[in-house]
Amino acid sequence: MSAVLKSTTAAPDLSRLLDPRGVAIIGASTDLSRIGGQPIKLLTEYGFKGKVYPVNPKYAEVKGLPCYPDIAAVPQPCDIALIAVAGHLVPGAIEQCGKAGIPFAVVLSAGFSEAGEAGKALNEKLLAAIKLSGVRVVGPNCLGVMNLDQDFRLGFGGTLQLKTLQPGPIAMVTQSGGFGFGVVAVACYYGLGFNHVISTGNEADLTALDWMEHLIERPDVEILTAFLEGTTEGHRLRRLGARALELGKPVLVWKVGNTDVGSRAATSHTARLTAGYELFRTAFREGGFIEVQDVDDLVDYCKAFRCRKLPRGNGVGVMTLSGGAGVLLADRCTARGLTLPRLTDATRETLRGIVVAYASIENPIDTTAQGYNDNFASYTRTMREVLADPNIDSIVARSPRGSVTRAWAEGLVEMLKGVDKPLLLNWPTSPDDNREAMMYLERNGVPCILAPGRTVDAMAALTDFARKRRVFAAARARAGKRAVAPQQLDLPAAGTLGEHAAKALLQAYGIPVTGETLLAPDAIEKLGAAPLPFPLAVKVESADIPHKTEAGVIRLNITSLDGLKQAAREVLAAAKQYKPDARIGGVLVQQMAAGEEVILGVVNDPHFGPVIAFGLGGVFTEIMHDVTHRFAPFDCETATAMIHEIKGVRLLQGYRGRPPCDIAALADALSRLSLLAADHADRIAEIDINPLFVNAAGVVAADALVVLK
Amino acid sequence: MSAVLKSTTAAPDLSRLLDPRGVAIIGASTDLSRIGGQPIKLLTEYGFKGKVYPVNPKYAEVKGLPCYPDIAAVPQPCDIALIAVAGHLVPGAIEQCGKAGIPFAVVLSAGFSEAGEAGKALNEKLLAAIKLSGVRVVGPNCLGVMNLDQDFRLGFGGTLQLKTLQPGPIAMVTQSGGFGFGVVAVACYYGLGFNHVISTGNEADLTALDWMEHLIERPDVEILTAFLEGTTEGHRLRRLGARALELGKPVLVWKVGNTDVGSRAATSHTARLTAGYELFRTAFREGGFIEVQDVDDLVDYCKAFRCRKLPRGNGVGVMTLSGGAGVLLADRCTARGLTLPRLTDATRETLRGIVVAYASIENPIDTTAQGYNDNFASYTRTMREVLADPNIDSIVARSPRGSVTRAWAEGLVEMLKGVDKPLLLNWPTSPDDNREAMMYLERNGVPCILAPGRTVDAMAALTDFARKRRVFAAARARAGKRAVAPQQLDLPAAGTLGEHAAKALLQAYGIPVTGETLLAPDAIEKLGAAPLPFPLAVKVESADIPHKTEAGVIRLNITSLDGLKQAAREVLAAAKQYKPDARIGGVLVQQMAAGEEVILGVVNDPHFGPVIAFGLGGVFTEIMHDVTHRFAPFDCETATAMIHEIKGVRLLQGYRGRPPCDIAALADALSRLSLLAADHADRIAEIDINPLFVNAAGVVAADALVVLK
Repeated sequence: MSAVLKSTTAAPDLSRLLDPRGVAIIGASTDLSRIGGQPIKLLTEYGFKGKVYPVNPKYAEVKGLPCYPDIAAVPQPCDIALIAVAGHLVPGAIEQCGKAGIPFAVVLSAGFSEAGEAGKALNEKLLAAIKLSGVRVVGPNCLGVMNLDQDFRLGFGGTLQLKTLQPGPIAMVTQSGGFGFGVVAVACYYGLGFNHVISTGNEADLTALDWMEHLIERPDVEILTAFLEGTTEGHRLRRLGARALELGKPVLVWKVGNTDVGSRAATSHTARLTAGYELFRTAFREGGFIEVQDVDDLVDYCKAFRCRKLPRGNGVGVMTLSGGAGVLLADRCTARGLTLPRLTDATRETLRGIVVAYASIENPIDTTAQGYNDNFASYTRTMREVLADPNIDSIVARSPRGSVTRAWAEGLVEMLKGVDKPLLLNWPTSPDDNREAMMYLERNGVPCILAPGRTVDAMAALTDFARKRRVFAAARARAGKRAVAPQQLDLPAAGTLGEHAAKALLQAYGIPVTGETLLAPDAIEKLGAAPLPFPLAVKVESADIPHKTEAGVIRLNITSLDGLKQAAREVLAAAKQYKPDARIGGVLVQQMAAGEEVILGVVNDPHFGPVIAFGLGGVFTEIMHDVTHRFAPFDCETATAMIHEIKGVRLLQGYRGRPPCDIAALADALSRLSLLAADHADRIAEIDINPLFVNAAGVVAADALVVLK
Repeated sequence: MSAVLKSTTAAPDLSRLLDPRGVAIIGASTDLSRIGGQPIKLLTEYGFKGKVYPVNPKYAEVKGLPCYPDIAAVPQPCDIALIAVAGHLVPGAIEQCGKAGIPFAVVLSAGFSEAGEAGKALNEKLLAAIKLSGVRVVGPNCLGVMNLDQDFRLGFGGTLQLKTLQPGPIAMVTQSGGFGFGVVAVACYYGLGFNHVISTGNEADLTALDWMEHLIERPDVEILTAFLEGTTEGHRLRRLGARALELGKPVLVWKVGNTDVGSRAATSHTARLTAGYELFRTAFREGGFIEVQDVDDLVDYCKAFRCRKLPRGNGVGVMTLSGGAGVLLADRCTARGLTLPRLTDATRETLRGIVVAYASIENPIDTTAQGYNDNFASYTRTMREVLADPNIDSIVARSPRGSVTRAWAEGLVEMLKGVDKPLLLNWPTSPDDNREAMMYLERNGVPCILAPGRTVDAMAALTDFARKRRVFAAARARAGKRAVAPQQLDLPAAGTLGEHAAKALLQAYGIPVTGETLLAPDAIEKLGAAPLPFPLAVKVESADIPHKTEAGVIRLNITSLDGLKQAAREVLAAAKQYKPDARIGGVLVQQMAAGEEVILGVVNDPHFGPVIAFGLGGVFTEIMHDVTHRFAPFDCETATAMIHEIKGVRLLQGYRGRPPCDIAALADALSRLSLLAADHADRIAEIDINPLFVNAAGVVAADALVVLK
């Protein structure tokens, strides 16, 4: 984990919140359909083993349980107070919980930061009460929490009342209680079990990241899912991503509020602050996250990851009983970056003895409808051979349909014992058809996914997570090797650095810059010879003129001393006209550079830290959006991966007969820039190297700008 | 419809194939599970009203039906012979059908063009028999055909035997019987009915296009779906697309075999020839097609189109009972090109009287969980007001869940009576939950789609189809207006035209080209003054050197007569060295052009006709793939739409303070090029204008190449 990822917040221990010995219901109602009644029903009728303490001065008893007049009267141990009173009573209730020694509160009540000015004022009171009492609070404006493994359902709403919910190795953290709980209900229909489901509400105290950090460490959680509208805890998100790779537990993240209109809606929904989507995407790319965009993705990927097998590479064996399905699966694999390797001659030889003559043992493998003749035993044997093929890392297969399926399923489960390569089945019919067989397969480690394209998408998710784990392990093994040691920099108190000063920082970190000299205006007039070999460029050095082309303070391709002096006069005049009060640091005389233009940028985000952008210049970045990002710092290997993520990399690889550019030198410059940005993250707000020229001989920064905090 | 879309094949009348008075089963079996037995079961147990005539010399009776010794003995009228005999017997059976006056045959037997050399030979015999007999044949190697409205199921396999299949206004044509029929079975579970389902098999005679052309004209078909691996009938596909827009019947097309590996698999599967995917995509873009990529898409879009309401624009009202869902739906709308307009003040005023104070009447509209308090009657009232808002073209809404749903559904259906704007519901739970209510809604014109993102995708499909209909109607209204009349061209017999000759063709169609003159080599040496104003370019004119930069036969920016003569000598020497036997047409002296570089290309596809490509030059086309296509001919309005489809259009619109380019002139040039390509499609194989310069004053073609057939 990188040095930048230092924690400012320790994850609180939330174990008791998911396994309480006793729960007080503040605002308990005798009407079990009401918000203060539903929790009592849920805690008494679904198998919960802990104590339940209704609190309401109006009643002596609720649903046969003794009802307490106030929080102070509740017996110990009581680990949680559920608060379902009117919003204005919540701060007081929290304070009383603190006095009563109740460590956690779950606040269902709404009307806080999401509810206009009055709500904001009430929220301030709530924050004060939390601080004063030391009580750790879930919500307000949340739906509750569930630990289904302990039959613990605390909250309200339709999902919590479903008898069909099952425990299982998945956890869900949702910033939208209504929507996220609904997804859990749908996933349950498809055979997925959740040990923990958490609605975080407005996050006045405990945040989604608090929960995610807790849950990912729990042995009863193998897959973490999250519905996120936003967070400012960028550093913690990045650290969670690293931890997910370390533990091999994927975080399936559904991040919404990414467009202008979506983001505005998210803000009005819970008044949540957040950062730009590109920062989230960068965190998702580097960490153990898999982005999901719809309910199906979430369900499918959970099914796939639950099988606990990850592919060693991206070579898929596609198997079908009908040619058409093979064609579309092959297309989709290609679209998702998966390959269909040729089987070895040995495997092909073996398969010839299993399948009929007109079957295809190319990949996609089409064993044809002939499988119907032997109850698909030959299909299973074919799968076994394909899985054993060294060219193959995983299988995507259409499942047979029909009455034979259960018997076939048992044979398949038997065959897969001891096989460590993943196999995903595309269930070819509707979810009700042979449902018993499908559920048998699911329970026994064979994911059944309901549409062919989605099956490939799920395999792509497994393959990508496996690749990230390899990349992470390799990066960790290399960790500590820096291209350059941390450098002391002589930085002014604040403001923008002009080109010459900015390049001095780059040079300190070993990033090549154009040969150049900064001269006072009158020194230029006195020159008897050019200070550097021609051709030369002349620019005005001024921290007050960051956009030189626009200001007309650049002259290029100067080939004579007279031309140099003339150019200096012109640019100084242009600067004066463009911005009369601009501070002029002198005239920059520099050597011309040539090659492909790329841009390297740094933005030091307050929540996520410094992020490095890389792309080709101008139009490619601004119009084509062919740009990629990584958080600083990173080494040359990561930089090389980054360079290969943009489409434009082909331009650097010897496009149309030009000599290939020195990509190693470019990667080195990117890595050094990332070290500069990370080492001095406390001072540097932005860096812009535009352009950096790359050619066969190396790289050189032709212009640069640094903005300090 | 454009003049290029002239038909070479008339669609055969296939009515009797879907509504036969009698069907002969050649190769009838008494074992009703066998391929020759299943059809007899299907035709006798599922309600089919026509006659069934088993044919097999071995039996006197099959399943209580008299069995005939040969085809000649079958009583008339008999409209179809189903053929389920060994492959080598098929050609003879076809010939006998011809003699017996049976007009149609459906051949289930396999072992033809898909089965190696022996199969290919057998296929030749089959083709000869078809030609000789005049019998129109479905298959071979197909699964059969169904007309569920007539309870007519002819073929074999699991799907045909499903009792749950329903008739409905959808038709399916599939080149993969196994896969396509499977999709029909899945769709049926989600409440979709198909009147006609056709497996085309190897298409020895009747093709997918024959079927699609027939089906789209049928009054019992409102939505046509197709699973296509490939076709060479590009012109017919384009004509079908136009017809679909004319009739307002969408064609949901699932085209596979689009990647190298997928295409190879498709070829081995049925030995089908096909064209490149880009041509299909161009046909899909201009016609009434909606591409689908998975089973869900197909099901969802059928549900959406079945409601028979199309949005007038892309403004969506998003409605939810939980903020989180609104955020994600808003994001997805934006990603799919849909907008969320603000409601009018009048609507907002009305809504304030319906929803609770803390509901959001911004768009997305979040009426909150408060709806639970009035059985969602206020939710329905809110929908009514939003649908009445002039800013809103359609609604995407989350459905409530819970036991109230059926009652609510009835109110919703009542409210929607007479409303002509579409409303799609996102069903928030699993397909088994409140299934009865969901099916009630579906039956009554309210599509229920199972995941939120998919619901938006379906609305985007409706919106796009509606937009295409508007574009089509507008184009038709303009039809006949040509920028230039057809021109006689003086074309050589064959070969490639050099730049000067190519530009003469462009000029004939009014496309501006650089001012230039073609001079003999010795004429240049004798020049006393430049033939055109400086600066000039000098190039070798040679049909044998199409790539001039690579050959080094171009000099640019010449500013003196001496320089011109020197340049001419150099390029002639370079041409001689590059290709000693190249025919030299002279030296081309031309004026320099400036502006943004774009490329315009024509490829005259043998199956689809001439297609025009447009993009920015070089890297943008080759690496960024920022290019778009249209079939020729088209007018300026279509050309303008085309120009705005590439990301790079921003470069032409006044990027970074440059003056905006003359996009009208560019559109005019594109339209004229399309007329040239269409008028002379019999002779012109390719045209390449690279580059065409566009600036504020207009366009000018700086280089061109024409390849003749």
